[in-house]
Amino acid sequence: MNEFALIDAFFKKPSVTPQEVVFGIGDDAACVKVPPGQELLITTDTLVSNVHFLSTWDAYDIGWKAVMVNLSDIAAMAGNPCWASLALTLPQADPTWLARFSEGLYSALNEYQVTLIGGDLTKGPLSITLTVHGLIPEGKAVRRSTAKPTDSIWVSGDLGAPALAVSFLNQDKIKATEKATLMHKLLRPKPRLDLVDILKKYASSAIDISDGLGADLEHICEMSCVGACLSFEAIPLHPLVKKYQKDNAAYFALAGGDDYEICFTIPGNQEAQFLKETQEAHITCYKIGVIEEAMGFRITDSEGKTSIYTPQGFKHF
Amino acid sequence: MNEFALIDAFFKKPSVTPQEVVFGIGDDAACVKVPPGQELLITTDTLVSNVHFLSTWDAYDIGWKAVMVNLSDIAAMAGNPCWASLALTLPQADPTWLARFSEGLYSALNEYQVTLIGGDLTKGPLSITLTVHGLIPEGKAVRRSTAKPTDSIWVSGDLGAPALAVSFLNQDKIKATEKATLMHKLLRPKPRLDLVDILKKYASSAIDISDGLGADLEHICEMSCVGACLSFEAIPLHPLVKKYQKDNAAYFALAGGDDYEICFTIPGNQEAQFLKETQEAHITCYKIGVIEEAMGFRITDSEGKTSIYTPQGFKHF
Repeated sequence: MNEFALIDAFFKKPSVTPQEVVFGIGDDAACVKVPPGQELLITTDTLVSNVHFLSTWDAYDIGWKAVMVNLSDIAAMAGNPCWASLALTLPQADPTWLARFSEGLYSALNEYQVTLIGGDLTKGPLSITLTVHGLIPEGKAVRRSTAKPTDSIWVSGDLGAPALAVSFLNQDKIKATEKATLMHKLLRPKPRLDLVDILKKYASSAIDISDGLGADLEHICEMSCVGACLSFEAIPLHPLVKKYQKDNAAYFALAGGDDYEICFTIPGNQEAQFLKETQEAHITCYKIGVIEEAMGFRITDSEGKTSIYTPQGFKHF
Repeated sequence: MNEFALIDAFFKKPSVTPQEVVFGIGDDAACVKVPPGQELLITTDTLVSNVHFLSTWDAYDIGWKAVMVNLSDIAAMAGNPCWASLALTLPQADPTWLARFSEGLYSALNEYQVTLIGGDLTKGPLSITLTVHGLIPEGKAVRRSTAKPTDSIWVSGDLGAPALAVSFLNQDKIKATEKATLMHKLLRPKPRLDLVDILKKYASSAIDISDGLGADLEHICEMSCVGACLSFEAIPLHPLVKKYQKDNAAYFALAGGDDYEICFTIPGNQEAQFLKETQEAHITCYKIGVIEEAMGFRITDSEGKTSIYTPQGFKHF
């Protein structure tokens, strides 16, 4: 099959086509409408074979993850995702691989009503770049640069399971059911789009913590010209991290990466209402620290001792 | 330098920031506004090392070309490009390479007032994916699927020079000045954005002919459910193709690829006004054939003999 036949077979599946899509796949460009009163969010993430995933993974998981890591960026801005473009580079046109990849990709897109509107299919070392668009009411995007001293710092879920999964990839030191739990956290991340309405209402800043809580919270601090003090005991760890890596808990809590939870800040006077609304929505978030005027990053341990922390998240170079 | 320092050094250059960009690089997503009455065009093209370019090329040319191949898609829809996202995958962070790449990229973006609003920088085999956005008044995008029988077929410039450049890449059979002319056509394509206003007014369909005139005109025919008859003598060839490849003219005219001219159709009753306006704008286009009701692709040679042509453009798989 040539590239046009491949696109027809694997990337033109029926999916939700909202009226905002004037036309999608099949022309030199796609054409869309942004509804009045809305702004457009645009994010791009690349997954490279044997850097972001193993080439031996089920292609379903690769397709799923390529979508979800991008949706997580839209969630962190408090937006609602709507359209995606796929740039797929393949060493060869393997229909079995493509069928699984396409299945995972469309499962993820359909779960959040995102329409695939176009892309490019090229030959080369396996890599996937997705560009995802989201909508947000004018002026309502939640940024990294707007945290204020005394705002409390929150995280949307427990951390460390994906990094623990990576550390156990080629090992059988844990029970099969536990390994399955960890691999599911690594392979099937879910963006926190359930938080979008609450973030839009209450958050003074937000970021998705794909690079590790420490490095990503540092982005908020640097861009907001503030500092942070975290209570280490308050950072929620996945139960299996507590079980297997108690001595390395700081690494898994702060630098593990691939978590796709959201770290955000809430002004003091909004906290009661924020808590009430998360409880009503059956969403559990964790208060882990406070934004401070003094730049830098501090952590208080279980004995109340505060020390300076230098974030070490995932870095490509 | 880590990826954030690299982004700061090479991809946050001052450039045109129109008021439609609410914020660009530096958050989980960029945020833009689409002006009322406008629709948004979205296109993505990937350039893979040693497939679309040679890794030995000056990185300036790679940056330039990555922008221009995408702008060509926006031009073919009759849109005006506005924003770009860059997904850059690099084997290593070489500041010399990055400085040249960034210079070429920004030269191209600035020439057409396109703002770089975000992207992703990852480690892996060298490849560049650009997603470019363009604006078009509501309902005015020129598509592939709307050519009608009796419409005349046009091409916006002479063809074959980039393919001839590729054929001479490792040869010195031609004069240095001629080789320089050809390499310039290959390395520094210019999208036909000068044609956008005229296409919007007169064209019944359009496509950019990056894959070769034959294969790309076939897309128009298939999507419009029509056929085409071309006069081979009317297809404009680059003078050096006529000089060096007279016997292979059909290949260079129809299947060479990488031309980034536009093939478009004009309804008969619009032709006089279209010609008047192109002359006033000092733009030369070439009438090469006619759209016919009968599906398929026919070519008439210099002796008036018509035969069936099977398009063979560049195919990845």
